[in-house]
Amino acid sequence: MRIALDAMGSDHAPQVDVEGAVRAARRFGQEMVLVGQEDVVRQELAKHDTTGLSIQVVHASQRIEMHEHPSMAVRSKPDSSMVVAMRLLRDGEVDAFVSAGNSGGVLATALASAGRVGRIKGVLRPAISSVLPTLEGRAFMLDIGANADCKPEWLAQFAIMGAVYAERVLGITNPRVGLLANGEEETKGNAVVQEAHGLLKQLDLNFVGNVEGKDLVKGAADVIVSDGFAGNVAIKTAEGTASMLLSVIRSEIKARPLAMLGGLLAKPAFKAAARRLDYREYGGGPLLGVNGVVIIAHGRSDAYAMENAVRVAIEAAQNHVVETIRQGIEKSAISGQSIAGQDTE
Amino acid sequence: MRIALDAMGSDHAPQVDVEGAVRAARRFGQEMVLVGQEDVVRQELAKHDTTGLSIQVVHASQRIEMHEHPSMAVRSKPDSSMVVAMRLLRDGEVDAFVSAGNSGGVLATALASAGRVGRIKGVLRPAISSVLPTLEGRAFMLDIGANADCKPEWLAQFAIMGAVYAERVLGITNPRVGLLANGEEETKGNAVVQEAHGLLKQLDLNFVGNVEGKDLVKGAADVIVSDGFAGNVAIKTAEGTASMLLSVIRSEIKARPLAMLGGLLAKPAFKAAARRLDYREYGGGPLLGVNGVVIIAHGRSDAYAMENAVRVAIEAAQNHVVETIRQGIEKSAISGQSIAGQDTE
Repeated sequence: MRIALDAMGSDHAPQVDVEGAVRAARRFGQEMVLVGQEDVVRQELAKHDTTGLSIQVVHASQRIEMHEHPSMAVRSKPDSSMVVAMRLLRDGEVDAFVSAGNSGGVLATALASAGRVGRIKGVLRPAISSVLPTLEGRAFMLDIGANADCKPEWLAQFAIMGAVYAERVLGITNPRVGLLANGEEETKGNAVVQEAHGLLKQLDLNFVGNVEGKDLVKGAADVIVSDGFAGNVAIKTAEGTASMLLSVIRSEIKARPLAMLGGLLAKPAFKAAARRLDYREYGGGPLLGVNGVVIIAHGRSDAYAMENAVRVAIEAAQNHVVETIRQGIEKSAISGQSIAGQDTE
Repeated sequence: MRIALDAMGSDHAPQVDVEGAVRAARRFGQEMVLVGQEDVVRQELAKHDTTGLSIQVVHASQRIEMHEHPSMAVRSKPDSSMVVAMRLLRDGEVDAFVSAGNSGGVLATALASAGRVGRIKGVLRPAISSVLPTLEGRAFMLDIGANADCKPEWLAQFAIMGAVYAERVLGITNPRVGLLANGEEETKGNAVVQEAHGLLKQLDLNFVGNVEGKDLVKGAADVIVSDGFAGNVAIKTAEGTASMLLSVIRSEIKARPLAMLGGLLAKPAFKAAARRLDYREYGGGPLLGVNGVVIIAHGRSDAYAMENAVRVAIEAAQNHVVETIRQGIEKSAISGQSIAGQDTE
């Protein structure tokens, strides 16, 4: 298996991206293709022992920055690392593509660049996904940013894609699908969510109804469906709150000598807790609905997170996630419950 | 000053509601009016020493439950504690009303019941607010549930009302107003948020732009403006994440004898951290935009939270929040920047 990795993606590119690729090549024994400005990438690569590893470099002269407007950047930078890597994916030269860059840029690259892989047949809109740590495990969330305004049918398709991914790639049998809302009752939600609720009830899914913000992280559902606006707010609020709370605890401990001793003794417990909640463990989330395995990693990833994002890519490719989603969407159409027929492209 | 308190409101009513009223009467030296089923309320009151306190009981034979549909419940229960208390407010017999009951019910009672206080002139939609603990202090959020679908002008008015409240009641000079969004850039947000962003830039406010979920809790703004859907998701996700993280830390500490000792030594630090983040400290948030001081407390409030909700009510009434908001809305209209003229009622 060959995995392309955007060497110019993350906030700390190319250091962590290249180091992540090296670590992944060693750990998983697959071929890595680093895409980026060749001299810079080779200079980074030279810092690591790559004996026995298969790591190729493909040159791309441009880079899409974090704060660039996605579709404009993609149009004006046809030789960016994202576009070049996506072309490799489209042409079947790699089995998956991982980037920690501008997520809107990755999406735009998949849909509208010279490397365009396009959408899976029948998919109305692709969704960006992520894994959210919960009390007992993890929840798979989508969309977290591709589509700020959604139609009810899009949310229904996100549910299908999320359930397929959770079952086939994450190994969750009969995953519980929840709809993010401002209350548990069916009557809650904005107009789009209320309509989506009706659609989800008709689909062949283990739909557990609306899920509130407070129940998300308690593990009320395995798959959380949302528009890209509220989903983004939820996942970033969870991330920010966890980090804020740890800061507050740390500062209160530091203010008390005896508590500092206590904190030292309790350190292994804190570490274990942090590990359970560490976003780096799952590395990245797939861009679901596009015609190829594309994994979007966190912009502030470190090498360990990048390494795990490559693992996610390998698992998604090995489990034929694209084909499985195609079938899931098609099946929902055949059963007359879909939606796929409404593709307006 | 006289404050009406819904004795049948909270999840643990009437115990905590009555106890909260007794504590508030003693702490603040104001008159309390408990509204609820008289025999039940008096039975609760008898458990406390009320010597020297001014606590009146007003009978209301019905109760609106947490899971009732607000407008239907309000219509079918004209003698509910909420409706009766709201009537006291409307008739000027009390200066404020506090309830930990069904928040949609409180809203519906304010707008459409026999006790209807109605909206402040020029206000398009009232908003439910809450205080969110942040790293260094607190942020004031609205709307957190009254309006799942909003128009841009409503969000602009929420900003005005929130800024007025933060300045006049919370004592924050020139409060920074942020708009909840899925990214900092002005181009982020759903369609409504993008349009609201344009309106907010034109208003005479200290508008700091879009605020992401992760920056909310870092204190990126003093007032966070949102529709009632995303605002509800954000505040409940923050609440759920904090509680989840504490559970995870607790379970990891308990799994290690040495860490348990450490946890014991660090307990005062944990307690201080918990106090900084405790929602009970601010008790409740005002229902802004209605023609009276109405405070909505958390459904799972305890007596201490109820006591603090009464404090919020007293502060809001003392600072003439209704009149100040009326002026704020009117001023924004006079300056040609509003919105208030679009009231369609």
